Amino acid sequence: MISISKIAELINGQVEGNSDLLIEDICELNGGNKQCISFIAHDKYAHFYADSKSDAVIVGMNTNLPESTKTIIRVDNPPLAFNKVTELFRPKLISEVGIHDSAVISSSASIGENVSIGPNVVIENHVNISDNVYIGSNTTIGRNSTIGDNSCIMTNVTVYHDVNIGSHVHIDSGTAVGADGFGIVTHEGIHHRTSHTGTVEIEDHVAIGTNCCIDRGTINCTRIGEHSKLDNMIQISHNAMIGKGCIIAGQSGVAGSTVLGNYVIMAGQSGVVGHIEVGDNCVIATNTLVTKTLKAGSFVSGIPARDHLKRKKQEAVINQLPELLKRVRALEQELDKIKKD
Amino acid sequence: MISISKIAELINGQVEGNSDLLIEDICELNGGNKQCISFIAHDKYAHFYADSKSDAVIVGMNTNLPESTKTIIRVDNPPLAFNKVTELFRPKLISEVGIHDSAVISSSASIGENVSIGPNVVIENHVNISDNVYIGSNTTIGRNSTIGDNSCIMTNVTVYHDVNIGSHVHIDSGTAVGADGFGIVTHEGIHHRTSHTGTVEIEDHVAIGTNCCIDRGTINCTRIGEHSKLDNMIQISHNAMIGKGCIIAGQSGVAGSTVLGNYVIMAGQSGVVGHIEVGDNCVIATNTLVTKTLKAGSFVSGIPARDHLKRKKQEAVINQLPELLKRVRALEQELDKIKKD
Amino acid sequence: MISISKIAELINGQVEGNSDLLIEDICELNGGNKQCISFIAHDKYAHFYADSKSDAVIVGMNTNLPESTKTIIRVDNPPLAFNKVTELFRPKLISEVGIHDSAVISSSASIGENVSIGPNVVIENHVNISDNVYIGSNTTIGRNSTIGDNSCIMTNVTVYHDVNIGSHVHIDSGTAVGADGFGIVTHEGIHHRTSHTGTVEIEDHVAIGTNCCIDRGTINCTRIGEHSKLDNMIQISHNAMIGKGCIIAGQSGVAGSTVLGNYVIMAGQSGVVGHIEVGDNCVIATNTLVTKTLKAGSFVSGIPARDHLKRKKQEAVINQLPELLKRVRALEQELDKIKKD
Repeated sequence: MISISKIAELINGQVEGNSDLLIEDICELNGGNKQCISFIAHDKYAHFYADSKSDAVIVGMNTNLPESTKTIIRVDNPPLAFNKVTELFRPKLISEVGIHDSAVISSSASIGENVSIGPNVVIENHVNISDNVYIGSNTTIGRNSTIGDNSCIMTNVTVYHDVNIGSHVHIDSGTAVGADGFGIVTHEGIHHRTSHTGTVEIEDHVAIGTNCCIDRGTINCTRIGEHSKLDNMIQISHNAMIGKGCIIAGQSGVAGSTVLGNYVIMAGQSGVVGHIEVGDNCVIATNTLVTKTLKAGSFVSGIPARDHLKRKKQEAVINQLPELLKRVRALEQELDKIKKD
Repeated sequence: MISISKIAELINGQVEGNSDLLIEDICELNGGNKQCISFIAHDKYAHFYADSKSDAVIVGMNTNLPESTKTIIRVDNPPLAFNKVTELFRPKLISEVGIHDSAVISSSASIGENVSIGPNVVIENHVNISDNVYIGSNTTIGRNSTIGDNSCIMTNVTVYHDVNIGSHVHIDSGTAVGADGFGIVTHEGIHHRTSHTGTVEIEDHVAIGTNCCIDRGTINCTRIGEHSKLDNMIQISHNAMIGKGCIIAGQSGVAGSTVLGNYVIMAGQSGVVGHIEVGDNCVIATNTLVTKTLKAGSFVSGIPARDHLKRKKQEAVINQLPELLKRVRALEQELDKIKKD
Repeated sequence: MISISKIAELINGQVEGNSDLLIEDICELNGGNKQCISFIAHDKYAHFYADSKSDAVIVGMNTNLPESTKTIIRVDNPPLAFNKVTELFRPKLISEVGIHDSAVISSSASIGENVSIGPNVVIENHVNISDNVYIGSNTTIGRNSTIGDNSCIMTNVTVYHDVNIGSHVHIDSGTAVGADGFGIVTHEGIHHRTSHTGTVEIEDHVAIGTNCCIDRGTINCTRIGEHSKLDNMIQISHNAMIGKGCIIAGQSGVAGSTVLGNYVIMAGQSGVVGHIEVGDNCVIATNTLVTKTLKAGSFVSGIPARDHLKRKKQEAVINQLPELLKRVRALEQELDKIKKD
């Protein structure tokens, strides 16, 4: 049980209500539980507030709320504050440090301090693993690859050879980093795979979800810029360059040699074709296909992608197309009639 | 060799033709093989009947067929009956029961009767595995997770910590259950992953295909309701609630906090955005993107999703848009001419 | 350091410039490096030529280039030639031949000459592995499956039981071959998985990328024809028949029982529904959904797929739909005015 005043101190918040209230866990706002604390991520969820059983709620500085007996804590960034409170009530299990007997580690590999290597992990020749790295069971790290300090590679991951993974990187289960790109050379009707002798650079603080496919470069590298976050089942193709701080949601793909600027957002199931550029801060809506270079700050949707507002207006007319067709028919008939008169 | 009369007895069917005919295997209707039995899943496939070499065919009670020398067995549900006949001719191999020496099993794990655990499986602390469970090679079951009786977890699967999997569940290779959801908190231009301390509940009789990604809930759980069946490469995002008896075909995704009712059907490559509700019995066509809450029984298609019949009418007009544009131009010219006269 | 004349001899090319120039590595054309050789894959990339630091460039027989001090080598097929040059400067590491102690290999399996089997590989009963096969760590080959000579199955792959994989096949990490197809029989409101007793045939020289899902046939087989190349996260559903020399780009899917002819190209994120045929040499554009049988040589795009040129014309009108609506309104008003006069 932790008091509201302690929580408010942790998150640098302003209490409105009972500072002595004791809280035993976090909860969701929608529904909620007694003696628990929740948060309002965005004003559009504020309508859950009145009926929530949550006794305390973390909210933004200017969020308007109805009268209630709840205690609220005002902060600048409620999701950030709530993340801290989560770690207070539900601390992360410290993983056992050590190297499991069943791991197969090359004698030429270099392993740092305080490293955790799970059962059946395979570490190939000349791999370099820095301090405080966690490697989950059944994962393979290919020859010559490096993993920076404090990175976490989960279960069943494949890191191919010669891949460079930075510090504080998180890679979830089933992801493959560094397979050959999809390059085909056709000769006399027979397709051959092209040699891929480039690599992959995963910069610091990148997160990659489950079952993603990050292919190696053909000659140089495929790069994911620092602080970028990728959801599940993302394909990053050979030679693609993803900038810093990008957010790419589930089942999206970036084709070969395409360059994403910094802070680009790709919503789920979206795609960008190969050999183009997407400028800084572009937003690509769900299930959008980008087929041409986008200037910085574009917000696009549709297949093929167009300016989002333009697409919305087009969609409004598409919704009345059958009526529009009828109106044109009616005009034709009336005009015929006029001409006959 | 099994006689038609025996087969008919097994599936409670009515024979038309030679009850003494001996059958040696199942076959497809299209093409077919002598001395084999096939079935007609749906009247739309009945045109394969006349030319099929199959000597016997399982059909519905009211399926009309041309004259032939074939023997037919009429039943209420041909696919269900054929499934039984398949198991008769091609019985499932009983997998060897036992725990492979190379499996790494925590001493705090609880393992039921008649459990099969393959080579290199990792069972972490406090895992609870019930009777008659099969776990394929190189699979990891994370700490505190539970697996109900008669469930089958295939090869290279990752079940993260604290996940609850019910009875008679089937999970195919490469699937990851319980990774952190894709939640991002941005502070001073830096993206941070949000803590995910919720879990995943997979209810009884659920089936999940290969390389799926079922993320854990942020605070509470992500749930897949009993008897729901998921194909390959499905993403179920954090906090999503999938009802009972849903069918989700390949490469589809459900975004965070969305609620699917019971018996919802999502065809392949479809998606549902986050924080909405899809009512019971909705049907979402292939490659559809649902962006708004759908009432029960809706049948939608398109990007964004609209009523399917409406989309079909719109598509019909889209197919003639260039002509429509010409007709409008012609009208403008004629009107100009009239005004000048 | 290798001389231009030696390189030209290897690729049967015609030198224009300094035959004695010594080259130390390959490089990309865009940017490029001194003392390195690059290539122009397609005339549309020729604009990178003038500013490239690359001292030598492999180009087509008829590619027009500005004056420069660079040495060029003319060949019929620059990507093919460059692939050979890549192997010259960056030879493939010969993988150690041998079977790792930790591999779990059934005594009933047959293993050919010169086979490499990585750590923690599982080879089940009656598996047949031919000569010169490479199997990466943590991969499982299910009972009765066969792998032809010179094939390469990478890390964390699952080959289910009774699967036939030909010679010179390459399968990348995380792919699952031979899981049951997504067949559902519903009886009294309960969905049951249908028995899948068919298999998968992967013909010679097929390549399959990371995290693909190739399901087994229901009664007969799912087939991928020789020399076909699949990118990452491809779903090939039960009973699908993929012809020879097909190219299927990332995140695409082919639904059940569909037949693709030879040399079909599917661009990224495309799909083909079940039970249809796609003729030889069809091209399916990125993010296209094919819903009907296509005759040979079709080039289609859109959702649903239509002739690509037709779709482009439709898209041009969609882009001006809001204006078209206004023009129709204006016509209606003018006509009203005329009628009143």
